[in-house]
Amino acid sequence: MAKQIKYGRYLHGGDYNPEQWLDRPDILQKDIEYFKKAHINTVSVGIFSWAVLEPEEGKYNFDWLEEIINNLYKEGIHTILATPSGARPKWMADKYEEVLRMDPDRTRRFFGGRHNHCFTSPVYREKVHAIDKKLAERFGKHPAVMLWHISNEFGGECHCPLCQAKFREWLKEKYGTIENLNKRWCTTFWSHIYNSFDQIESPSTKGENELHALKLDWKRFVTDQTIDFIKNEVDAIREGGSELPVTANLMYDYDGLDYKKFKDVLDIVSWDNYPGWHKKEEYVTAVDVAMQHDLMRSIKKAPFLLMESCPSATNWKPINKLKKPGMLLAGSLQAVAHGSDSVLYFQLRQSQGASEKFHGAVIDHYGKDDTRVFREVTEVGEVLEQIQETVGTTMRSQAAVLYDRENDWAIADVQGPRNVDMHYRENVQKNYRALREQGLNVDIIAMEHDLAGYKVLAAPMAYMFRDGYEEKLRTYVENGGTLVLSYWSGLVDGTDKCFLDGTPYGLMDVTGIRSAEIDALYDWEENHAIPEKGSHLGISNVYTCKNLCELVEVSDAEVLMRYGEDFYQGYPVLTHKTFGKGHVYYVCADMELGFYQDFYGRVAAEAGLKSQVEFIPEGVSVTVRESDDTEYLFIQNYARKPQTVAVPAEYELLYGTESEVMAPLQTRILKKRK
Amino acid sequence: MAKQIKYGRYLHGGDYNPEQWLDRPDILQKDIEYFKKAHINTVSVGIFSWAVLEPEEGKYNFDWLEEIINNLYKEGIHTILATPSGARPKWMADKYEEVLRMDPDRTRRFFGGRHNHCFTSPVYREKVHAIDKKLAERFGKHPAVMLWHISNEFGGECHCPLCQAKFREWLKEKYGTIENLNKRWCTTFWSHIYNSFDQIESPSTKGENELHALKLDWKRFVTDQTIDFIKNEVDAIREGGSELPVTANLMYDYDGLDYKKFKDVLDIVSWDNYPGWHKKEEYVTAVDVAMQHDLMRSIKKAPFLLMESCPSATNWKPINKLKKPGMLLAGSLQAVAHGSDSVLYFQLRQSQGASEKFHGAVIDHYGKDDTRVFREVTEVGEVLEQIQETVGTTMRSQAAVLYDRENDWAIADVQGPRNVDMHYRENVQKNYRALREQGLNVDIIAMEHDLAGYKVLAAPMAYMFRDGYEEKLRTYVENGGTLVLSYWSGLVDGTDKCFLDGTPYGLMDVTGIRSAEIDALYDWEENHAIPEKGSHLGISNVYTCKNLCELVEVSDAEVLMRYGEDFYQGYPVLTHKTFGKGHVYYVCADMELGFYQDFYGRVAAEAGLKSQVEFIPEGVSVTVRESDDTEYLFIQNYARKPQTVAVPAEYELLYGTESEVMAPLQTRILKKRK
Amino acid sequence: MAKQIKYGRYLHGGDYNPEQWLDRPDILQKDIEYFKKAHINTVSVGIFSWAVLEPEEGKYNFDWLEEIINNLYKEGIHTILATPSGARPKWMADKYEEVLRMDPDRTRRFFGGRHNHCFTSPVYREKVHAIDKKLAERFGKHPAVMLWHISNEFGGECHCPLCQAKFREWLKEKYGTIENLNKRWCTTFWSHIYNSFDQIESPSTKGENELHALKLDWKRFVTDQTIDFIKNEVDAIREGGSELPVTANLMYDYDGLDYKKFKDVLDIVSWDNYPGWHKKEEYVTAVDVAMQHDLMRSIKKAPFLLMESCPSATNWKPINKLKKPGMLLAGSLQAVAHGSDSVLYFQLRQSQGASEKFHGAVIDHYGKDDTRVFREVTEVGEVLEQIQETVGTTMRSQAAVLYDRENDWAIADVQGPRNVDMHYRENVQKNYRALREQGLNVDIIAMEHDLAGYKVLAAPMAYMFRDGYEEKLRTYVENGGTLVLSYWSGLVDGTDKCFLDGTPYGLMDVTGIRSAEIDALYDWEENHAIPEKGSHLGISNVYTCKNLCELVEVSDAEVLMRYGEDFYQGYPVLTHKTFGKGHVYYVCADMELGFYQDFYGRVAAEAGLKSQVEFIPEGVSVTVRESDDTEYLFIQNYARKPQTVAVPAEYELLYGTESEVMAPLQTRILKKRK
Repeated sequence: MAKQIKYGRYLHGGDYNPEQWLDRPDILQKDIEYFKKAHINTVSVGIFSWAVLEPEEGKYNFDWLEEIINNLYKEGIHTILATPSGARPKWMADKYEEVLRMDPDRTRRFFGGRHNHCFTSPVYREKVHAIDKKLAERFGKHPAVMLWHISNEFGGECHCPLCQAKFREWLKEKYGTIENLNKRWCTTFWSHIYNSFDQIESPSTKGENELHALKLDWKRFVTDQTIDFIKNEVDAIREGGSELPVTANLMYDYDGLDYKKFKDVLDIVSWDNYPGWHKKEEYVTAVDVAMQHDLMRSIKKAPFLLMESCPSATNWKPINKLKKPGMLLAGSLQAVAHGSDSVLYFQLRQSQGASEKFHGAVIDHYGKDDTRVFREVTEVGEVLEQIQETVGTTMRSQAAVLYDRENDWAIADVQGPRNVDMHYRENVQKNYRALREQGLNVDIIAMEHDLAGYKVLAAPMAYMFRDGYEEKLRTYVENGGTLVLSYWSGLVDGTDKCFLDGTPYGLMDVTGIRSAEIDALYDWEENHAIPEKGSHLGISNVYTCKNLCELVEVSDAEVLMRYGEDFYQGYPVLTHKTFGKGHVYYVCADMELGFYQDFYGRVAAEAGLKSQVEFIPEGVSVTVRESDDTEYLFIQNYARKPQTVAVPAEYELLYGTESEVMAPLQTRILKKRK
Repeated sequence: MAKQIKYGRYLHGGDYNPEQWLDRPDILQKDIEYFKKAHINTVSVGIFSWAVLEPEEGKYNFDWLEEIINNLYKEGIHTILATPSGARPKWMADKYEEVLRMDPDRTRRFFGGRHNHCFTSPVYREKVHAIDKKLAERFGKHPAVMLWHISNEFGGECHCPLCQAKFREWLKEKYGTIENLNKRWCTTFWSHIYNSFDQIESPSTKGENELHALKLDWKRFVTDQTIDFIKNEVDAIREGGSELPVTANLMYDYDGLDYKKFKDVLDIVSWDNYPGWHKKEEYVTAVDVAMQHDLMRSIKKAPFLLMESCPSATNWKPINKLKKPGMLLAGSLQAVAHGSDSVLYFQLRQSQGASEKFHGAVIDHYGKDDTRVFREVTEVGEVLEQIQETVGTTMRSQAAVLYDRENDWAIADVQGPRNVDMHYRENVQKNYRALREQGLNVDIIAMEHDLAGYKVLAAPMAYMFRDGYEEKLRTYVENGGTLVLSYWSGLVDGTDKCFLDGTPYGLMDVTGIRSAEIDALYDWEENHAIPEKGSHLGISNVYTCKNLCELVEVSDAEVLMRYGEDFYQGYPVLTHKTFGKGHVYYVCADMELGFYQDFYGRVAAEAGLKSQVEFIPEGVSVTVRESDDTEYLFIQNYARKPQTVAVPAEYELLYGTESEVMAPLQTRILKKRK
Repeated sequence: MAKQIKYGRYLHGGDYNPEQWLDRPDILQKDIEYFKKAHINTVSVGIFSWAVLEPEEGKYNFDWLEEIINNLYKEGIHTILATPSGARPKWMADKYEEVLRMDPDRTRRFFGGRHNHCFTSPVYREKVHAIDKKLAERFGKHPAVMLWHISNEFGGECHCPLCQAKFREWLKEKYGTIENLNKRWCTTFWSHIYNSFDQIESPSTKGENELHALKLDWKRFVTDQTIDFIKNEVDAIREGGSELPVTANLMYDYDGLDYKKFKDVLDIVSWDNYPGWHKKEEYVTAVDVAMQHDLMRSIKKAPFLLMESCPSATNWKPINKLKKPGMLLAGSLQAVAHGSDSVLYFQLRQSQGASEKFHGAVIDHYGKDDTRVFREVTEVGEVLEQIQETVGTTMRSQAAVLYDRENDWAIADVQGPRNVDMHYRENVQKNYRALREQGLNVDIIAMEHDLAGYKVLAAPMAYMFRDGYEEKLRTYVENGGTLVLSYWSGLVDGTDKCFLDGTPYGLMDVTGIRSAEIDALYDWEENHAIPEKGSHLGISNVYTCKNLCELVEVSDAEVLMRYGEDFYQGYPVLTHKTFGKGHVYYVCADMELGFYQDFYGRVAAEAGLKSQVEFIPEGVSVTVRESDDTEYLFIQNYARKPQTVAVPAEYELLYGTESEVMAPLQTRILKKRK
């Protein structure tokens, strides 16, 4: 079903808004000259162009677009063509009020901003369908056009009557009868029993805001309705006769949508990456971004596109710092090292007015090419050509971390031990970072992902066991996998309803423990994990734990570490059991990073995982992309000082310095035949 | 009028929601088995059961409830029966919109949550009346049922047209003419003069939000309307033929209602106690809770019920810590030591879903009795049986602290010297704590309370002198009482209108001083109170004052301490005067706790107040309950270390260790014949 | 056009609300007695009196007012008469809903508070016109009445349909065609193109909130509509036959209106001054207030009135401190030293109720004259009589600081390098303070102000060059002026549209530099400015820079300081160029105060500016007022310690001690014949 995306070269370029300069042909001309100079081969056009494409209802104006595409194509520059649904024209909002969203308080928003259309509105869907089809008819077979960019950064939700009705249908399809819904949602609590689906209303702080199952299903509905909206766009494109692949640009750790469900509607995943570099530790940011790249790649387990990134400083963060020399190249190659087949920017030319006029661009208001930013963009273009053979190569991971959006939603909404912060994301990231520091490719997966092929699976705070996830984990371990489960796991099913008879549900025999109580610590409190002498892993350091400390009863497990303080001094902090051919570790508390670094070093060794690089100094990142016959090793140094990274002799240098001493922000790419 | 509440044993048990488990008879059966094991003799049922009791309009379904009550009763367990008005069914909200509240912006809330009904709506009152009457008819004479639990945790307000109309009636009744209201409210300011009562609107941040008298009267109206709502419920119960006593569960320091006015509508006061134990100093929390117990007891000056408390961790605080071993027993006995005749929990069995599913319970999702919590609950039940002779005994206090809700409202709303925080509550608590540390029972009273019987009365920041309170204080002192008045006292009358001609109003001759100015200090500022050599109390330490420093002119008073800094260096901080047979002290500044501890030690001695325990170590609490012939001494140690508490030989041990060395969280109960 | 305002004496007195005491003739009588005792010669009456002046629609009741005015006049006290439009009566809001404002969410506010009328409503304008005219007819020629006080503290905005329509008219007049508006506003961005003026809506967080040009024009419209509202009031007064001058009381640094546009509608500027004295450094507050006085004086470059100030503590700040002894006099004389011809208070007598009842007053609730405040007010009255010859004298400044409200709006709304805070105001104040510390009178001006006469002009962060401001600056320098321009200057035109081809726009040749990039620093970051050896100014210290660091390319300028760190180490921080007969300095970074103090000392000397006082110790303020033949030197000491200020022998003492050693808060006034 998914389209093959193989362009044979890295896409280099980005968002381009020529419609803002139609009265300045000199500038449009200059753009092409500069693009070529900067090795730019791809532009994304049409994002937010609706008011120019259809200035009055039914009056389409595509000629300017064709001319732009043609002019670029003549110079070897391809086009990613966007559908314009990210922002509708004023005339449409004025004539058809229903295209605008309603807030949770059931009042309608006015025209303004962007991304605020109702996903359900038949009128809006019809208008989008019409223009998308027209665009496909006109450009769908144009040799310059290579990819459809559906709308822009999907997000948000609408509480209008149309959406309410659709939500009720969605619930009816899911639950069948209202009795079943009542039972699954536990509506007896606080007399919330529904007599019919018609009585259900979307969550609102002015109404129902504590029925977790309702809120969870509403979030799922929003994702499904967004995907349905995308399908409407894709259908229009296909009806217009275009068979080109489609993508949509996703966002950093966006929790309004469940991206794993975009797997089938998109032919290729793409995302917009705007890290806040140059904080106190560059490496911390690098790990954070790496996890997002890995998350995006794991959606389809295939190369993705870096659809947007900033060539200089953004303009929408609290503090928008300049990228220091070398940062642009390092950040661009980081995307490639994690599986991207492109380096695309927002934006190629700065707009002259409105809210993003000071967002960094390849060409700024000054308008010439003798700028630091232009020189650094050009360098990126050159390097991408130099490493062209790596494009389209894939990544294999034997380690994975479970980071499931539905689980995240449920934990964030839970009223439980710590309502200030359960630290779920931090916990996931500590597991991820410690695994990555073993020099391993790591996937970031959801509960739906297949576990075959993984030797180590970290499943921290797997609060919600959806659709028999406990069975999936059991089988995984039985078959020889190593599972690292933690506190706050297996408490509820997919409707956030608690399992009875003990937790982690369905895995008490697999883990050999039962969770009895969980203590929340004030921010100023801490406990310690004291290693048990002679444990099979050989951990010998004391580590701090904070925030949450689970008290478990051991039925059949080895205790590797025990609490050092409080009334549960001596209770287990870390247990281990072999089950089937595999291993299960259970981490009872929110441990400091150092624990995970120590722990996963030992667990990876036990599981037989090994990096291509023997010793990985602090701040250094190692990933591997591979083709059928070649393995490519990407090494980056995000430490503040030079680091020496010894690479086995069989690797030959593709990019970077000969020396194994790597300066800060330096990248080396090596290869060897398989 | 008030019903006699004498059960002959401590009530032990709590909230129980069997309607959530009607499809699990095995669980309902297990519950009874466990209740008996844990010495549970009382359950509260029917809270939030309306949707099950009346699933469709006019179709009542009470059979399941009768069966539950019968099954429990067979095993010796009594029932507190709730009226279901705390949350209405969805069908009612859908059919009769008026049952839902309006926010101050005059928009109506949607269905959701709980406790959000309009207190005025005739429809809602009628529906509540109907089901309450039906419940009374069916269960009002059932031998198992011992008490009515009216609705749940009353609170909140409604700004709908029905409430507006009722508010205008209330005002008309209070003020008679609009001219009188204008005069009392000072509406000439900012041209707010009303031509008729019809023009008055409830306060709102979208409208009038600075007319203090309006806001104050609105709060009073909300209390009165809530009480009127309760009366409607009680009437229904009486019409249904039940003569059982009624209660309503009040909340910790809740400032939305004036609880003193609940005195007559309730036969017995009960409240829900959820302290945040295990912060840095356990004792600080203990004092805070003690003051609430004393406040609740003082409403009717009679034993009260602890209606809810958590057997383990709550789930709605920012950080929900486990109760450490021994805390449940200590906290339960603290309630008893301050006058409770019960220890009841929320909840007996955890619900499987919805917002409170992780709130601690006697029986948790695991569902067995081999848990730490279950063992500790059982211990509480055993101890309550052991000290059964103390149930129903009363408390006498010779010291009282004025903590008046209307005064609190007025101070909180005042635009005065410190709008960030006037620190009224902290001031009250410092007075309370220092008095309690003399080993005295202390009442927490409002301006309406009779002052006869008190030897020492602390009236800190008595800003509002309502209904001639100055005369009450004058008489109290004349008759021999010791009054401790402070800065920010006697400034306004009951409509927040300033007294002219000098303050503290009506007491300038009694105190011998006039308040001339008041200085507000920045948070980083402080002043000091320097003792005057040879003052009759003999205070010799220097104490810090912060926040507010009043400058008084002395006409006829002894100056005991003077300011040490600023332009008012040398002005009085503490004055004293004998008046009639009594003493008046005037504290000019917000003094540190140490001052009050020193000061009240001397004042109590002067007033002839003496504790049963000669020396009370830090962190130790002493109270006395008494029957006609016996005095019971309750001693608890909330210090972090063991403390030795010597008790006169005539006391004999009823509960606790023989040794006078008390471990942390330990309780000893002793008795002697009067 | 502007009325001559010469009263021959300082106005001393303030806001007076006798309508609150009409039932207390004894108090009204007492007031006059006290006023005379305190040397009060002027009262402001009628502010917020509408409900008393017109208790029912069309029924006017002015007799009481006439009696008050007459009684005061008999005792030599004049009246400033207010129009009552600051708060309308309840009957009007009830009958004509349109007089109430709509919030940005298009919901109407309810009656309440004050200052919340629609500025467009024809009904409201008509009602205001009617009562103003009646007042003018009755009192416009009364010998006691000297000045009209239009409404009160204008501010706020309304989003009702009437205002929307008026806004569209305003835009049409400004832009002519919708095409022109689209082009100037850059509406192509995000598809915001308007097809007609009818489609435009005011900014709202529920709608359009990121189109900067729309938001900027909306703010301009609000100012213009407010002025139009004032004109309606003035017209009514004139139609009523009064030719007395008019004023409106402005507010401290109020950013809701552009006060420079009030220049023509007011005959004299007045403002309400409520400093938060007695923070850690008195002098910092003094500088802050001084800048406001200078800003108000600069609007018309003429004496102004201090319309309100507090004789004691305010009641609306978070912490309302008492004024320490001497502060009232010092603060009052500070206003005079900066060009005020009055010292007026809010309020003469405290109101007995409502929100401002605890605001300080000359006569408080106690009601007698034996108070500290009354004594200090009396002293102010005495001193004003002593220095009567200085009243009406003017001020000349040879230095000015650009602080432009439209520029401020644009910077505050920008999405640029630092969205947390661009620190514009602090930057302006650092320039102002350093110039003032040279002992110079300083004007605070907008871009419209004429630059002739200034020798030094500081234009920090002149982001927006409106209406060819670059030409004005060029001419100013060419003619011999010294311009200090800074980073973040000359980026956009008057519609917030970016200039192309390099910035500071139009001044790259004048400054000899081009701004290439701008770096934002985290709050914990800093860089340093290192002096270049042998620069012509001779700066030799290293200074810290924070927040924003611009990177400039030098084409033709002397570099005086360079960055000490980061990748732009060695780039210029301070440059200089002579251009025509003048000098241009360009400051690239947000420098610490010490830099400006050092820098302006050298720049003032270079520009030939010299204070009357040779050496000005820390914390001392010097200003000069002058008449045709005499120069008056005002010296105040805001340091915490005594300072010695040597004054040339030709000055003779008008007020203050003979000694040149000035105690804290002391003032000396000296004079010399020109």
